[in-house]
Amino acid sequence: MSTPGTYAETGVFVCFEGGEGSGKSTQSGLLRDWLTGQGYAVRLTFEPGDTAVGRLLREIVLSPETGELSDRTEALLYAADKSEHVDTVVMPALERGEVVITDRYVDSMLAYQGAGRALDVDEVEQVARWATHDLRPHLTVVLDLEPAHGLGRFDERDRIEGESLEFHLRVRDGFLRMAKADPDHYLVLDARAGIDEIAAAIRERVAPLLTRAAHG
Amino acid sequence: MSTPGTYAETGVFVCFEGGEGSGKSTQSGLLRDWLTGQGYAVRLTFEPGDTAVGRLLREIVLSPETGELSDRTEALLYAADKSEHVDTVVMPALERGEVVITDRYVDSMLAYQGAGRALDVDEVEQVARWATHDLRPHLTVVLDLEPAHGLGRFDERDRIEGESLEFHLRVRDGFLRMAKADPDHYLVLDARAGIDEIAAAIRERVAPLLTRAAHG
Repeated sequence: MSTPGTYAETGVFVCFEGGEGSGKSTQSGLLRDWLTGQGYAVRLTFEPGDTAVGRLLREIVLSPETGELSDRTEALLYAADKSEHVDTVVMPALERGEVVITDRYVDSMLAYQGAGRALDVDEVEQVARWATHDLRPHLTVVLDLEPAHGLGRFDERDRIEGESLEFHLRVRDGFLRMAKADPDHYLVLDARAGIDEIAAAIRERVAPLLTRAAHG
Repeated sequence: MSTPGTYAETGVFVCFEGGEGSGKSTQSGLLRDWLTGQGYAVRLTFEPGDTAVGRLLREIVLSPETGELSDRTEALLYAADKSEHVDTVVMPALERGEVVITDRYVDSMLAYQGAGRALDVDEVEQVARWATHDLRPHLTVVLDLEPAHGLGRFDERDRIEGESLEFHLRVRDGFLRMAKADPDHYLVLDARAGIDEIAAAIRERVAPLLTRAAHG
């Protein structure tokens, strides 16, 4: 599937993607602080898990106690989480003109469940697009990091973090390919750069988008 | 979508469909007993919920405490349940040559989440077929009943049973349309007939399929 995608007409939708330990939560928090400081209404959110049903699904997909899940089951659980997140959190906030910043979105599903697992990426994309009404971020920031570096930061790994290095290399490659195919909507940054340097580069790409955002 | 579907080459896959209170569990149990009595290996199962993750998902989709779920979220949770069920229960049993009898399968998702909800039936079907590798039952028995009759049997209703009469009329119509389109793989029976009469009609359609079944 290769649809043009849907972009919200009000609000600004910014997504952070990247492997484990690439600094997504640090940078999404800094962007939130910068926007809030300028008076914008901001909704900082994340996938999987930032809805009532999402919290239950996050527990199922990430807990090592879940044991084996078929690849399709895992993908469908992530899709259900996305569906609820878009319908009840992301879209309502965008309709109010807010800046929605999400830590992971559809690209994570395409990279982890498509490129990472043995599933057909086009089929996974079709499910993910259906789940999210094909709503796309105005900007996706990819914090790029070699998996061997990022994974070293964790002592206890969940079901996904515990996958092989080859799995995480395929995931990284997945993110980079998506960014390369649509440079207008992507910003790829080296996650090893300084925190302030990365934050400044992100602000520079977000600033021109703010004409459609409401002040809080 | 209108794919030809995949039919298992070993084992026999029989599905019971129909509205609430139509007698699916009674009839699937009677069929199991009849087959077991003849020495066949039988796996009686159900959707949603007959796997470890399925039990958690069943709780989420059916509990009135879950509250509102978006239609897509609900459909994707049912799809995840089906995926795990087919991969870990149905397919392995068919590969062993068993007769698999399931109480509800893909048609329930098409009838309840497609015809019943406001979703595009073709899109729901695409997700359901992907979740199940497009595996089809050799025979689907539809126990047909007017919703007003079936629903009267329940004092406490779950999230689905508590839907409007119009919803359940659309569901019934969905089952009947699917059966009409593929008579070779469907048997529609009036659920108000006598239990023994219905059981005999089912056995008559199942008997010719047993050449591919293994004895337990």
